[in-house]
Amino acid sequence: MEAHNLKESAMKIVIIGASGTVGRAVTEELSRKHEVIRVGRTQGDEQVDITSQASVQALFEKIGPVDAIVSASGGLHFGPLATMKDSDFDQGLQDKLLGQVRLALTGQHYLNEGGSITLISGIVAHEPIAQGVNATTVNAALEGFVRAAACELPRGIRINLISPTVLTESAEAYDGFFPGFESVPAATVALAYRRSVEGVQSGRVYKVGY
Amino acid sequence: MEAHNLKESAMKIVIIGASGTVGRAVTEELSRKHEVIRVGRTQGDEQVDITSQASVQALFEKIGPVDAIVSASGGLHFGPLATMKDSDFDQGLQDKLLGQVRLALTGQHYLNEGGSITLISGIVAHEPIAQGVNATTVNAALEGFVRAAACELPRGIRINLISPTVLTESAEAYDGFFPGFESVPAATVALAYRRSVEGVQSGRVYKVGY
Repeated sequence: MEAHNLKESAMKIVIIGASGTVGRAVTEELSRKHEVIRVGRTQGDEQVDITSQASVQALFEKIGPVDAIVSASGGLHFGPLATMKDSDFDQGLQDKLLGQVRLALTGQHYLNEGGSITLISGIVAHEPIAQGVNATTVNAALEGFVRAAACELPRGIRINLISPTVLTESAEAYDGFFPGFESVPAATVALAYRRSVEGVQSGRVYKVGY
Repeated sequence: MEAHNLKESAMKIVIIGASGTVGRAVTEELSRKHEVIRVGRTQGDEQVDITSQASVQALFEKIGPVDAIVSASGGLHFGPLATMKDSDFDQGLQDKLLGQVRLALTGQHYLNEGGSITLISGIVAHEPIAQGVNATTVNAALEGFVRAAACELPRGIRINLISPTVLTESAEAYDGFFPGFESVPAATVALAYRRSVEGVQSGRVYKVGY
């Protein structure tokens, strides 16, 4: 008995949010074996505004078919519940939630057979923090989206979610909002992205550091 | 030893979505002991469009302080993932999700001390169904919202979520979408609303029938 060789061919991977703390680590991890297209709002090989359907459509039209869509992108509203307005709340819905959903809805048509979509959520889905009502809602929503979308995606296309605790790189800046939370380095979060992209599971939430 | 008497005084309760299948059962259950204001989109004692901040604000201004805000309201988008557009997806975000969040964000300022907010979700948060990606996302989001909002609400105000399986009253109409799911009568769902309104817990998801 000997193990069959795993397919080791390089993939073409688009990383949205490539210039952020997580995005840079994911780019480093995935570019070792794969062709990576780094996309940012203002930086990178290509630019995209995930809150705009036209912008997302134009990105995929330009880069053509890919094997993996990877997101480390999306803004949220932080603020006290007592003074939160519906328009504040909608900001996070339109950006981190619908923005990433848009990457999946549009990107599904540009994925090669057996490709994958990997989106980002976070620990606040499960562990509320001060001023984080919008964040908990959006991150929980993304878990739902991935759970359901995994059941409908065709052609062996998979979808997963990466849900890290607070990053070690950001822990000081966010001190007070994550009291007693252990942090995780972005490089460890990047490993979870690799599990999602190169692995076989779908509909998974990869919790990292908690 | 004898049990202390529970406070048995009648509350003033506003029920949004009072003319739907769940809303009618909740109205029947809660109006036995309490003063109930039935609110619908086009029917009831008052009317509201939960997708409009002006409409929600006007409702609370008109009815004044209440002891409980109860929602059995909110539309979703149903359709295949393969042809789903971002605008389709946003419909459910704006209606069942942001609509109910709006009831909470606005209504918190009209609740008496020790009051409560009860919103509606559904089993599809956890059990995806065909064409239900938007429903799973929105229902999961509402679980997140309630989990986080419960941590920030002041003056003893509580917030909970009712998450029923498919209703017995609707099971035939939705046949095929809920294969092998057990159903639950709306009257049983109404009991969970009573637990939320008259009970002591906050941040709870009351699963009904599953």
